[in-house]
Amino acid sequence: MSNSNGKKTMAVGESYPMNGGDGPYSYSRNSIYQREVVDASKSMITEAIFDNFDIENSPSNRLNTIRIADLGCSVGPNTFMSVQNILQAIELKHKTIQQNPTSPESQIHPPQAQPQTLEFQVFFNDLTANDFNTLFMTLPPSSPPYFVAGVPGSFHHRVFPEASLHVAYSSYALHWMSRVPEEVVERDSPTWNKGRVHYTHNAKIFEAYSAQFKRDMEGFFRARAQEVVEGGLLLLILPGCQDGVLPCETSASLQHDLFGSCLMDMAKMGMISEEKVDSFNLHLYHTSPMEFRELIEANGYFHIEKMETFIPFPILKELPNFHELATHFRAAIEGLITEHFGSEIVEELFERYAEKMAQNTYVFDDLFDAQNIKEFMIFACLKRKVGDEGNGDLHFNSEENQFC
Amino acid sequence: MSNSNGKKTMAVGESYPMNGGDGPYSYSRNSIYQREVVDASKSMITEAIFDNFDIENSPSNRLNTIRIADLGCSVGPNTFMSVQNILQAIELKHKTIQQNPTSPESQIHPPQAQPQTLEFQVFFNDLTANDFNTLFMTLPPSSPPYFVAGVPGSFHHRVFPEASLHVAYSSYALHWMSRVPEEVVERDSPTWNKGRVHYTHNAKIFEAYSAQFKRDMEGFFRARAQEVVEGGLLLLILPGCQDGVLPCETSASLQHDLFGSCLMDMAKMGMISEEKVDSFNLHLYHTSPMEFRELIEANGYFHIEKMETFIPFPILKELPNFHELATHFRAAIEGLITEHFGSEIVEELFERYAEKMAQNTYVFDDLFDAQNIKEFMIFACLKRKVGDEGNGDLHFNSEENQFC
Repeated sequence: MSNSNGKKTMAVGESYPMNGGDGPYSYSRNSIYQREVVDASKSMITEAIFDNFDIENSPSNRLNTIRIADLGCSVGPNTFMSVQNILQAIELKHKTIQQNPTSPESQIHPPQAQPQTLEFQVFFNDLTANDFNTLFMTLPPSSPPYFVAGVPGSFHHRVFPEASLHVAYSSYALHWMSRVPEEVVERDSPTWNKGRVHYTHNAKIFEAYSAQFKRDMEGFFRARAQEVVEGGLLLLILPGCQDGVLPCETSASLQHDLFGSCLMDMAKMGMISEEKVDSFNLHLYHTSPMEFRELIEANGYFHIEKMETFIPFPILKELPNFHELATHFRAAIEGLITEHFGSEIVEELFERYAEKMAQNTYVFDDLFDAQNIKEFMIFACLKRKVGDEGNGDLHFNSEENQFC
Repeated sequence: MSNSNGKKTMAVGESYPMNGGDGPYSYSRNSIYQREVVDASKSMITEAIFDNFDIENSPSNRLNTIRIADLGCSVGPNTFMSVQNILQAIELKHKTIQQNPTSPESQIHPPQAQPQTLEFQVFFNDLTANDFNTLFMTLPPSSPPYFVAGVPGSFHHRVFPEASLHVAYSSYALHWMSRVPEEVVERDSPTWNKGRVHYTHNAKIFEAYSAQFKRDMEGFFRARAQEVVEGGLLLLILPGCQDGVLPCETSASLQHDLFGSCLMDMAKMGMISEEKVDSFNLHLYHTSPMEFRELIEANGYFHIEKMETFIPFPILKELPNFHELATHFRAAIEGLITEHFGSEIVEELFERYAEKMAQNTYVFDDLFDAQNIKEFMIFACLKRKVGDEGNGDLHFNSEENQFC
């Protein structure tokens, strides 16, 4: 996407979304883990909406239309399930208020002020290169029904008009940063990440990633503060790890390190150049609850109604299927790999990755131990405060906006 | 798209939009005629918006966001030019009111009530199978900038929430009906269109098409009456012909007849079956100003601010390039042909069509004669009336809606 002066500022993350279509390596067929996250968070979402969403109190909702966005929706089917869940929760609350005029909710919002039926408009947002064609062609029937729109562009910038969303939701997407931190790929920098693709074993690299995540979240929350109506909700689910835990203590980071070592193996065998590996990094970051809370509070436009962590999968009893795990990762990053190294290495790389995991099962040790597990999902229910109570001017330079 | 009970009701037109991508037979590279329509209508659109669009008077626009839809946008570049033109006209009017507090417009809308800057959200709408990926990837820089959304679904039904659009625009799309009239393909019907693909030489078939167009426009205007805000504009451009003219008197209809005869030639040579030709018809209809006006008035929710006709191309001085003309038609209907006859006949069919036009240049005679030309484009600027002044209940069964 570009702004009015025509400048294209395409960062790494902008151009390579999840694999499209519905083939064997597509995201739509390899997002079972994300599906578990959706399933596990279902009751949390329902409860958060029921407890915190004031349908009728929003000053910009004089009509009976509720606008919802899924930020980083990819191609389904997970986004469709999440959206249905959100819609049903809103409808449940609406009906409860209408049917129980003596309920505490009805005292606050007298039923005569409420429209009889709600209309829903759902905005599916992801990077411009996301496979929106497949998304639209696979839309399932929904109850309640909704009007559909696809919104191309990075959620690190503005993608919606001012005060136009009542509920903005994002699941398993915020850990994708807008780009790899610059200093990590600069050959002369003390934080040059030579021979590795992530921050697993280097505190300085980790700091550089953390700083980039902070910049991204500043953009994200500033944009959402403008787009979400006062009193509207921002429901976020993202992978994270315990406060103070080192990256090398989590299974996710160790897996990324193994993946990087497969690339280095291939470089040593002359299949790709070592320079190529040195200049490649994963733009993934797993925050901690404390860091994330600080970022929300630094923005200041949202009140944290609830923040909790959960583990979406059962504690492991046996080792996972390594081939499935490798294919799952492939669905997410094949575009990146192909762009950087060429498509010819893809098959072998992910086969090697599955093998490497089988040879290094220690990376999964933590996931067997309920007492010791250091990684989880963070769920946050944020409510847009009334008025411009936040920190910083929201009406910043529109050049930053994700306008066409 | 399907509604809440999961029933799929896919009519012929729903599944086959213009050719996607940007290949040699794509709509994006074969829509020069539609581009001429956009160019020729530019000043009409600007004037219509300047004269009729009350930015600040709309009861549902307490924010500074203007929502615009292009209904039947296809894949560009024409839609981008049209949208830019509409946005610039709105911004021009807005600035004029702000800068000239003594102007008649400013007396009606005092400048202090107006927001300083406008935000625009543009909804690109077309059939679900439209190539939205190409549309999004080819979005050009725009001034003024706008937020982008793609909306899949037929404009013959609801595709937007209630009172959510300030300007709905449609160019060169309304002549595509939602389907071929049923009675035209029924073997036992007196209106079975055996051996032909359009209504060119048969008054009964023409009546059946006219009745289908009426049903489609009832759906179209009923949906728009709900979606366009009170005081909002519906700007329509569609091909038409003079009141009372027979289909066989227009070049467009004669061209369709030639196209049908190519299919029959191929059937006679055994390349396709005659039954296949008998069951194939073009779901295109060219209305007349009088008929179109009656359909708008039958709906009753829109006031006709302006209705005029124009010829977007210069009167012919020499015969057109037949190969180009055939390719242009191919970009629009290849999907239909492939579905019905298979892709293997496509090359030969359109080559034959170009040859057939070269052998029957009489079909272009009218286009050389400024005095006698019977076909043109119809431009209509309609304003949504205030209140429910129209005919019929707008809040009809939501089963008809183009909900997901």
